Amino acid sequence: MNLSALLLPAWLRHYRRASLPGDATAGLVVTVMLIPQSLAYALLAGLPPEVGLYASILPVIAYAALGSSMTMAVGPVAVTALMTASALAPLAALAPAGSAAYATLAATLAGLSGLMLLAFGLLRLGFLAHFLSHPVISGFVSGSAVLIAVGQMKHVLGVKVDAHDVPGMLWQLAQALPQAQTVTLAVGAGSLAFLWLARSHAAQLLHAAGLSSAAADLGAKLAPMVAVAVTTALAASLDLSAQHGLAIVGAVPQGLPTMQLPWPGAEAMRALLLPAALIALVGFVESVSVAQSLALKRSQRIVPDRELLGLGAANVASAVSGGFPVTGGFSRSVVNFAAGAQTPLAGVVTAVGMAIVIAAFTDLFFHLPQAVLGATIIVAVAGLIDVQTLREAWRYDRADALALLATAAGVVLAGVEAGIAVGVVLSLGVLVWRSSRPHIAVIGRVPGTQHFRNVERHRVQTVPGLLALRVDESLFFANASAVEAHIEARVAADPEVRQVLLVCSAVNAIDATALGVLSGLEQRLALRGVQMWLAEVKGPVMDRLHSTPLGQRLQGRVFLSTHEAFLHVAEGKHSVNP
Amino acid sequence: MNLSALLLPAWLRHYRRASLPGDATAGLVVTVMLIPQSLAYALLAGLPPEVGLYASILPVIAYAALGSSMTMAVGPVAVTALMTASALAPLAALAPAGSAAYATLAATLAGLSGLMLLAFGLLRLGFLAHFLSHPVISGFVSGSAVLIAVGQMKHVLGVKVDAHDVPGMLWQLAQALPQAQTVTLAVGAGSLAFLWLARSHAAQLLHAAGLSSAAADLGAKLAPMVAVAVTTALAASLDLSAQHGLAIVGAVPQGLPTMQLPWPGAEAMRALLLPAALIALVGFVESVSVAQSLALKRSQRIVPDRELLGLGAANVASAVSGGFPVTGGFSRSVVNFAAGAQTPLAGVVTAVGMAIVIAAFTDLFFHLPQAVLGATIIVAVAGLIDVQTLREAWRYDRADALALLATAAGVVLAGVEAGIAVGVVLSLGVLVWRSSRPHIAVIGRVPGTQHFRNVERHRVQTVPGLLALRVDESLFFANASAVEAHIEARVAADPEVRQVLLVCSAVNAIDATALGVLSGLEQRLALRGVQMWLAEVKGPVMDRLHSTPLGQRLQGRVFLSTHEAFLHVAEGKHSVNP
Repeated sequence: MNLSALLLPAWLRHYRRASLPGDATAGLVVTVMLIPQSLAYALLAGLPPEVGLYASILPVIAYAALGSSMTMAVGPVAVTALMTASALAPLAALAPAGSAAYATLAATLAGLSGLMLLAFGLLRLGFLAHFLSHPVISGFVSGSAVLIAVGQMKHVLGVKVDAHDVPGMLWQLAQALPQAQTVTLAVGAGSLAFLWLARSHAAQLLHAAGLSSAAADLGAKLAPMVAVAVTTALAASLDLSAQHGLAIVGAVPQGLPTMQLPWPGAEAMRALLLPAALIALVGFVESVSVAQSLALKRSQRIVPDRELLGLGAANVASAVSGGFPVTGGFSRSVVNFAAGAQTPLAGVVTAVGMAIVIAAFTDLFFHLPQAVLGATIIVAVAGLIDVQTLREAWRYDRADALALLATAAGVVLAGVEAGIAVGVVLSLGVLVWRSSRPHIAVIGRVPGTQHFRNVERHRVQTVPGLLALRVDESLFFANASAVEAHIEARVAADPEVRQVLLVCSAVNAIDATALGVLSGLEQRLALRGVQMWLAEVKGPVMDRLHSTPLGQRLQGRVFLSTHEAFLHVAEGKHSVNP
Repeated sequence: MNLSALLLPAWLRHYRRASLPGDATAGLVVTVMLIPQSLAYALLAGLPPEVGLYASILPVIAYAALGSSMTMAVGPVAVTALMTASALAPLAALAPAGSAAYATLAATLAGLSGLMLLAFGLLRLGFLAHFLSHPVISGFVSGSAVLIAVGQMKHVLGVKVDAHDVPGMLWQLAQALPQAQTVTLAVGAGSLAFLWLARSHAAQLLHAAGLSSAAADLGAKLAPMVAVAVTTALAASLDLSAQHGLAIVGAVPQGLPTMQLPWPGAEAMRALLLPAALIALVGFVESVSVAQSLALKRSQRIVPDRELLGLGAANVASAVSGGFPVTGGFSRSVVNFAAGAQTPLAGVVTAVGMAIVIAAFTDLFFHLPQAVLGATIIVAVAGLIDVQTLREAWRYDRADALALLATAAGVVLAGVEAGIAVGVVLSLGVLVWRSSRPHIAVIGRVPGTQHFRNVERHRVQTVPGLLALRVDESLFFANASAVEAHIEARVAADPEVRQVLLVCSAVNAIDATALGVLSGLEQRLALRGVQMWLAEVKGPVMDRLHSTPLGQRLQGRVFLSTHEAFLHVAEGKHSVNP
């Protein structure tokens, strides 16, 4: 590997000219889509609008240098923006929303979560993302989408709401509705209706008007920019802000972000550690699932540990350039892919586009109504509400479906942090609960074969005095006692039993807790004149068992196959029950 | 079942006279042992000494009525006393240690954890105790023992220490050593030396002096009472408290506890919920393991859900009679068992004994030096430090040993609550980490049999174009992606593969996440012209799979045995590779 290999990412070293038109088009389309979204997500996070623009330049380039996805669009997204607002709310005494200190905290949050992602990537801890099951992630995203959508209604209606949970916000919205500002309501509800209809019908209309089907699809995605342009022009020409109290974005400072290390003090750093870890976890999980679903369509591969590095670098870049937490978003990535992005150069084009916007054109956003940004967010997150996964989980696996609902309810009623805690606990709780109640089958031989199956499901032969049990689970702390109790009950129920044969074909591991339990069981069975036998113990399990006291005592009673164990008893008895 | 069956526990209805001598002796021996321990653990919890006595009367009777162990001795123990102190420390502003409000909080803690235990018992949630693996429990108890022993050194040396972590306490002890009070040091170090020697040699000496071996063992357990009697007499006759500043227990109110419901206010209740849950969990786990190890020696059975009820009732009884959290302790239970306890009547005898002490003899404790109580605690908890389990776990399973060490380190460096959190997270983390890296074997047929084994471990026959993989783990959210990546890599490495056969003999469940991953994998393999086949799918797994879209697509490609799948390819090809 030479120097350029170390410094330049593979896609850049092997860049083919043929990819350029696709990358350039996709980069520009995403830029146009990103402008209103970045402003809107900054407001959602409680930050001034320019912070959203800052978070859309350097982070995009950092991800392009280190990430493994060819088509993912990194930047501010709805869920991490919400989590940023929720993480900083308890620190309001220290730094009220909108203050410079608040922006420093948001950048710090990005920096901390970026450093955590980088550390996890270097330590190859990508597997930690698996602490969350798909249903729990789905419930979390759907719950967040509802929370965000309801939270934006106040901008669309032009009313004041200070509750933070969904029922509270709905109650206050219903009470405040009569006081809604007419002009704000007209702009907000008008944009909402326009965006909603555009989402379902614009592509069709553009196609009918003569555009190719692919171009029509892309054109439909630009509807938010159209709404922004039209309402901004209207607000400016009629001076709706001064005349009718329409809330507008106002002055957005022109010029590229300045580089600086955020440092809010040691106490604030400590308070931000846990929220930063949650943002890192959620951002990573969301981003990897987007990247993977896109990569699969072109038979490309995503390397989770490299995604950690890419997203980590992106967040650190966001922190030093005055941004806030970023990750790979679903909607923009899909557009990037559909618009023909072949390599991360599309992201670089987007970054350059955003840099030009912020360097020269922020004046254009002065009269942009906040109600339109609210409407943009509502329509964007509505697409994240995922009923399909709930329906499938409900049909396939009730416990997973309940975990999904509980996580969504946790987010809606108690906020994102409570929701994610509920989700992790439920994911693991369901896992432990399931493994703690293992399926244990008494087995016998299928006549004329060397196959052994459940006596309750098949007509099989058994040998008197030999109780052959197949435990369908690895033995570990959560189920060792249950297995022990089951075996003792079986032995107590049949005084004829002289050997208990544990068939370990489904036992992939025995942990120290289970080893202790098995050892005690073997000794107690021996006191009753019952021998414990093992069969079909897997190589790795047997390797460990060998050197333990239990392994020593079991010498001569461990059989390669259930068949051999049956032959052994039969030889001793000279009679096999038909 | 008649009325007496509902009102009287089974052991009382079927009480045999022959058990009476054993129960009475054991009850009295435990009383003598419990007096210094209950005073000492109350001080450890930051409570006045009489609270320890209160917690040794009603709770013992409540457990006798509902618990399932015949020999367990319930009352104050070191670990829950430490956890009580640690739970109430953050509320010092509200209720400083030693105040009446502090005692109310301690009783509330017992009440809340008792109610939780009762609720868990009624809901049959005993399995929740399995969230902690044995190595983690061992690490927690050992770490707590070190923390308690070091924390008591200040009483033995007669110096002031205000740190709460072990390194901090050791540092302050080392600095304060030159200021140690001579008389306190003499009493404390003297008692410590006496108790330490008694623990290792007293039984031997008493046996040599003519006592039977069993009586000598019991006699040795009464050494703390001897130390208490001698030093109290000394302190009283020489007036060591007034003359030399020896810290003594002082006035202990005489009279039985008054019944009352503790109510510290809603805010304090909320703050105590989590600590109460942790105390309930730790107390239950510790107690059940003690009860089980004793029951096994007499082939009796412990019913975990009844233990929840017994311990829950004991803690509620402690709460209403001015006590603090109680559970089944190791050392007193062992003595109870060894002294001949046959039924919980032994506990009733202990309770009556303690009631008599508190009603008439508390004057005797006035001059009892706190240094002796500290020495008693140090020697008692020294026996809890468990190096054996660490050594075994280190040899058998490095991950378990590291979890043990990390939990112990967490307790010693950051306190009991951090320790228990580290323990739960590590128990589950190790479980998820292990399952997330499943063993996957390519298998082939053992010649001349219907057995299929790992190609890397055995000489077996394979069929060209058929990749037979045995996944040694249930498929769920933590490992689905890893399995998918493994299979894709194998298929990519061998362009000849036309069928991928997943042998599911070790797959005990497939959750919704893994189902989604498998479904995607099947579709992508199909695009490459590779079919996915399944074999040896267990009944319960197949029942669910049937109704899913993946199950529909796989119709005709699910084989009962690996053998059948091999025959199927061979028939299609008319050639099997030798």
